Amino acid sequence: MDRLSDQAVNCLKYVSTATLTTQLFRRGFRNVFMQGVALLGKIENANMVGPAFTLRNIPAREDLDVLEIFMDPENPQRKGIETVPPGHVLVQDCRGDKTAASCGSILTTRLKVRGAAGMVSDGAVRDSGVIAALGFPVFCAGASAPTNLIKHHSVDMNLPIGCGGVAVYPDDIIVGDIDGVVVIPGHLAEEIATDAAEQERMEDFILQRIEAGAPLRGTYPPGDETRNAYAAWKRQKFPSD
Amino acid sequence: MDRLSDQAVNCLKYVSTATLTTQLFRRGFRNVFMQGVALLGKIENANMVGPAFTLRNIPAREDLDVLEIFMDPENPQRKGIETVPPGHVLVQDCRGDKTAASCGSILTTRLKVRGAAGMVSDGAVRDSGVIAALGFPVFCAGASAPTNLIKHHSVDMNLPIGCGGVAVYPDDIIVGDIDGVVVIPGHLAEEIATDAAEQERMEDFILQRIEAGAPLRGTYPPGDETRNAYAAWKRQKFPSD
Amino acid sequence: MDRLSDQAVNCLKYVSTATLTTQLFRRGFRNVFMQGVALLGKIENANMVGPAFTLRNIPAREDLDVLEIFMDPENPQRKGIETVPPGHVLVQDCRGDKTAASCGSILTTRLKVRGAAGMVSDGAVRDSGVIAALGFPVFCAGASAPTNLIKHHSVDMNLPIGCGGVAVYPDDIIVGDIDGVVVIPGHLAEEIATDAAEQERMEDFILQRIEAGAPLRGTYPPGDETRNAYAAWKRQKFPSD
Amino acid sequence: MDRLSDQAVNCLKYVSTATLTTQLFRRGFRNVFMQGVALLGKIENANMVGPAFTLRNIPAREDLDVLEIFMDPENPQRKGIETVPPGHVLVQDCRGDKTAASCGSILTTRLKVRGAAGMVSDGAVRDSGVIAALGFPVFCAGASAPTNLIKHHSVDMNLPIGCGGVAVYPDDIIVGDIDGVVVIPGHLAEEIATDAAEQERMEDFILQRIEAGAPLRGTYPPGDETRNAYAAWKRQKFPSD
Amino acid sequence: MDRLSDQAVNCLKYVSTATLTTQLFRRGFRNVFMQGVALLGKIENANMVGPAFTLRNIPAREDLDVLEIFMDPENPQRKGIETVPPGHVLVQDCRGDKTAASCGSILTTRLKVRGAAGMVSDGAVRDSGVIAALGFPVFCAGASAPTNLIKHHSVDMNLPIGCGGVAVYPDDIIVGDIDGVVVIPGHLAEEIATDAAEQERMEDFILQRIEAGAPLRGTYPPGDETRNAYAAWKRQKFPSD
Amino acid sequence: MDRLSDQAVNCLKYVSTATLTTQLFRRGFRNVFMQGVALLGKIENANMVGPAFTLRNIPAREDLDVLEIFMDPENPQRKGIETVPPGHVLVQDCRGDKTAASCGSILTTRLKVRGAAGMVSDGAVRDSGVIAALGFPVFCAGASAPTNLIKHHSVDMNLPIGCGGVAVYPDDIIVGDIDGVVVIPGHLAEEIATDAAEQERMEDFILQRIEAGAPLRGTYPPGDETRNAYAAWKRQKFPSD
Repeated sequence: MDRLSDQAVNCLKYVSTATLTTQLFRRGFRNVFMQGVALLGKIENANMVGPAFTLRNIPAREDLDVLEIFMDPENPQRKGIETVPPGHVLVQDCRGDKTAASCGSILTTRLKVRGAAGMVSDGAVRDSGVIAALGFPVFCAGASAPTNLIKHHSVDMNLPIGCGGVAVYPDDIIVGDIDGVVVIPGHLAEEIATDAAEQERMEDFILQRIEAGAPLRGTYPPGDETRNAYAAWKRQKFPSD
Repeated sequence: MDRLSDQAVNCLKYVSTATLTTQLFRRGFRNVFMQGVALLGKIENANMVGPAFTLRNIPAREDLDVLEIFMDPENPQRKGIETVPPGHVLVQDCRGDKTAASCGSILTTRLKVRGAAGMVSDGAVRDSGVIAALGFPVFCAGASAPTNLIKHHSVDMNLPIGCGGVAVYPDDIIVGDIDGVVVIPGHLAEEIATDAAEQERMEDFILQRIEAGAPLRGTYPPGDETRNAYAAWKRQKFPSD
Repeated sequence: MDRLSDQAVNCLKYVSTATLTTQLFRRGFRNVFMQGVALLGKIENANMVGPAFTLRNIPAREDLDVLEIFMDPENPQRKGIETVPPGHVLVQDCRGDKTAASCGSILTTRLKVRGAAGMVSDGAVRDSGVIAALGFPVFCAGASAPTNLIKHHSVDMNLPIGCGGVAVYPDDIIVGDIDGVVVIPGHLAEEIATDAAEQERMEDFILQRIEAGAPLRGTYPPGDETRNAYAAWKRQKFPSD
Repeated sequence: MDRLSDQAVNCLKYVSTATLTTQLFRRGFRNVFMQGVALLGKIENANMVGPAFTLRNIPAREDLDVLEIFMDPENPQRKGIETVPPGHVLVQDCRGDKTAASCGSILTTRLKVRGAAGMVSDGAVRDSGVIAALGFPVFCAGASAPTNLIKHHSVDMNLPIGCGGVAVYPDDIIVGDIDGVVVIPGHLAEEIATDAAEQERMEDFILQRIEAGAPLRGTYPPGDETRNAYAAWKRQKFPSD
Repeated sequence: MDRLSDQAVNCLKYVSTATLTTQLFRRGFRNVFMQGVALLGKIENANMVGPAFTLRNIPAREDLDVLEIFMDPENPQRKGIETVPPGHVLVQDCRGDKTAASCGSILTTRLKVRGAAGMVSDGAVRDSGVIAALGFPVFCAGASAPTNLIKHHSVDMNLPIGCGGVAVYPDDIIVGDIDGVVVIPGHLAEEIATDAAEQERMEDFILQRIEAGAPLRGTYPPGDETRNAYAAWKRQKFPSD
Repeated sequence: MDRLSDQAVNCLKYVSTATLTTQLFRRGFRNVFMQGVALLGKIENANMVGPAFTLRNIPAREDLDVLEIFMDPENPQRKGIETVPPGHVLVQDCRGDKTAASCGSILTTRLKVRGAAGMVSDGAVRDSGVIAALGFPVFCAGASAPTNLIKHHSVDMNLPIGCGGVAVYPDDIIVGDIDGVVVIPGHLAEEIATDAAEQERMEDFILQRIEAGAPLRGTYPPGDETRNAYAAWKRQKFPSD
């Protein structure tokens, strides 16, 4: 993962996609959260984070999309899985069609073995029980048994695509947590990681006050008193910052 | 909660929304169950029950719905949360748009601290993992990270609204269980609570007979023999009734 | 279950619906997996398998669909549940309308007591928490409290129907796992069971190789080397085959 | 058309479906208007009116629904068209799937030649330009070129069905105008025809007053003054009534 | 119409909604065009233009929404129609539910007689043929015969609402043409009218060049040469500008 | 148009898309008709026919999709319009999103001037009234005023795409009539043109018989007698065939 500093990756692993969308909204981005794409299985203890490697599918055609095409190692779906660099997230454009699978347990296992950071699809997956138990982050539109050949023709890789209604350019930074998947334009990821971490630190402080009975007014968003108290708390807790 | 007797509240906490919709259907109500609204997280050991306090959202507008508006304590979303009376359920009209959040963990925590009985929205929530773990009943259209400002402008509170396709008038009684959320017109809540409790008592008896191998005919709905047996069982189990 | 050999039933209990849709795709079937129908609760340790017994619902009409009709034992919903042969799967056509229940806990319990193999509906169910805990396979479009009478008029049984967008003929073989429900045309079920079991055995072998680091090329789909290794492995593990 | 008097048929030809749904609402019917079904082409000078003759379609299956089946005169689609009695309306249940045709110009021409009163489908039609020019009332979900065999298997005729979300029983009275299609339960058609004609006569009178500048209050709905004026106007215009 | 100069109104009558959305996009507005709302009938020779007067509907409730409520002149639907000022556009929030009518021919005629500038609804209308022939601009979600009482409870007027997914504040300027309906925030209407008229003048010039064979490059958007030619053409055609 | 003989083009201009989908179904193609795409305006006296030239759009991003990008002649939308060869059909993939325009009157006029055979989009168009009057075939998902920049980022041209749910490969043959748009795989277009023309000739004969009162049985599909009569009629009418 050469585009992001280790520190930024670390920040992105522990902030929420809610915080990230707020940081992006501050910068004028309103459409960065994938619709209809959810975590399969349970969330790991850290977010899925990695640059996007894209795979594009168009509707299948009966004469082209037959089982025999998988014998061809140049088939974009198979080649894509063998090409996604370690640490990257494979993002599949399935046009939001969840009536067939975009992949199953064997391909997902291969992705995991190859060191991918995760898989995102706005189509469905098959073998959903096996995949959910892999310990590998997968975000998708649900479970559907039919083979991809019935609906999806994988056509090319690492072009800009749409996924879940959001533009995904290769090497955009993909972050997934229990709320879903956010796409951070690559050139903004470093600064957003920093600002998001700071926002969450303050919101942790605010949440403590709210839990202790503070009203919203003056606390969330913070007024002067809360800001000062936060600054003092931060100096004490994170003296090196 | 001054509109319902303690006994009625207690009944409503332990009957199912299925039973309540049947009681409402008996009285001519066909559209009392919210569509597209589901429990977030696990069900508590009792239903969510409380009078409705409503919050209305209209579509956002780019020049009005900016982060700065939250500094205004009169903002209806913030004010609504500070105003909902203890024991009431905050019901949000988000026009069924689940592409952005209607609230997040801090506001929901504030609702809980203030003693609200629960929160219902036909939009989504952000920080869904945190909210699901709060031990506070939330029913919504799913999880979505983006801030409400992207889609929702909170405009006024405690007017009649629609939520999940159902009319909600302030102080209607809202009941939520694992099936979802039912809206009981306020003036009927007392009698429906009583009748629902009785219906469930009989259905518990019927279910025992079905589990023991009784056929539907004569048992469900009960014929004379079953009714008599139920009456005897009831006299024995609940002699004071 | 007289249409399928015990061996075929046993195969179908332990293969995935993903594998079954691939076997059906091989034979020219593209539309055999129900859309919008998912497992309620947790999967059992084996698939739901059984011949279809169908129940058809049309939209309700206010003057016909009243609570009193359940007193009539000839009501198709009640009669259907009393008629479905042991080992069969009750499949309900609810036109994909999930705004009301197609059945609740008492009827589902009766189905279980009568020895049905499971229940499938492209409508919703009520009492979803109770049903999910029954230890009886139910696949449906979700949870919805309102009585079926609000939307569904059960009209006849064991005619060909649509369910989840798929044609279901009486005695087609219905198989459900965590991905969902597949419909196998009755006359093909025996051969598909056999071929699916063999496909899964090979895929188990392939998955081991993938887990061990083998690339897709030559492994999935298997090339000559993998096929030979599989044949050797199979001879050793299943010498009697 | 033996179920309705000539006078009732004549009334139904010239009242609006709006008026009919109001008459049905008065009697407790809320779901009598087909959703997603619209007139193809221009309205004739009178409504389509006739008893329903139904045709049911389920999803197609690749091995059964091939071009050769049309050689069989017992095919329900072909037989249905040859069986619908003169003056009846053929109503097709296509499950609201408009991605393929439910019929084309040749079958529709045959319906017209046989004296049917019209055709209603909640699927699409092909050859929509030719059909729109036939001078034969067709109400459907739009135009779609693909043959019905791709999506629809005609399975039986003259059973109760759903069409456009409404229950249709054989011999219910179907009325179509520019707003769409209403289904009148057969046993109510005579009285509803009479009452609808009277309602429209009064509304014609009211509309004249509104056009002349009368306010809604006292006019629509009519107060005593308007009712008396209407009674006088009616005596003068329709002295024999 | 006191909020807009006559000149601005005149500009808005003859520019397209396409041009207006571009002017709004320039100022940061992305969500100003109603979705699912279309012109009923043929376009007049000028756009519908006027300040918004709003009417809000929530879902109907069976015990409240009965035919008798129309006797009450305070009913918001009836009162709204009698209150909308001449030159204003009545905008109805029907939550995008087009399964019942939001009004019919008598109410629409009353609106016309009272001098309203038009009617917009994201619900349907009944008597669609009569309304389309009124010579009064109506934009809606289609035709549907059932009375509003089945789905819509009119609840209040001239509050901010949503319509077709867009925020509508009272006195926002509503413009409708054959593409549909755009909402201009009131405080921007004057300047947008001016800029839109100038944009259209230039685009008329550009279109002439394109029709004459000019390539897009340098013409659309205009380069220096085209801009100069346009300036000369404008000086000649509109010397007083 | 070098891929098709003049004779084939001529056949395709006068057969219906209904006939073409039947010919494709005969060859195993079930998904060749675009969904949600309809003719804008009135049909010309011949079909739109031409090889596909594709343009792909992904979701817009706020920082990239600004009005200034149109100054760049390499912008794929603008370049695509200047590049589509005469006689070809521009086919746009807008992911079925009709909430913004995929083009307007100036670009469409340029397409016409450049000699394109037509334009197809599964998004909307703006200036729909002007475009409908151009005498240039446009098939799209409807009218929508907002500029494409709000939703669509044109990203590349003449790659395989999806449009209306159908795979479109460059140089596939696109045919549009009043029912909609069919995509014929390029290598099959010649033979399908021939067979479709013959099918239509026979169906014209059949339609005459149906109009004259012939029953479906033996006529449609034709039995031996009808086939012989058709052969005789054909020999007489088209002696040179």
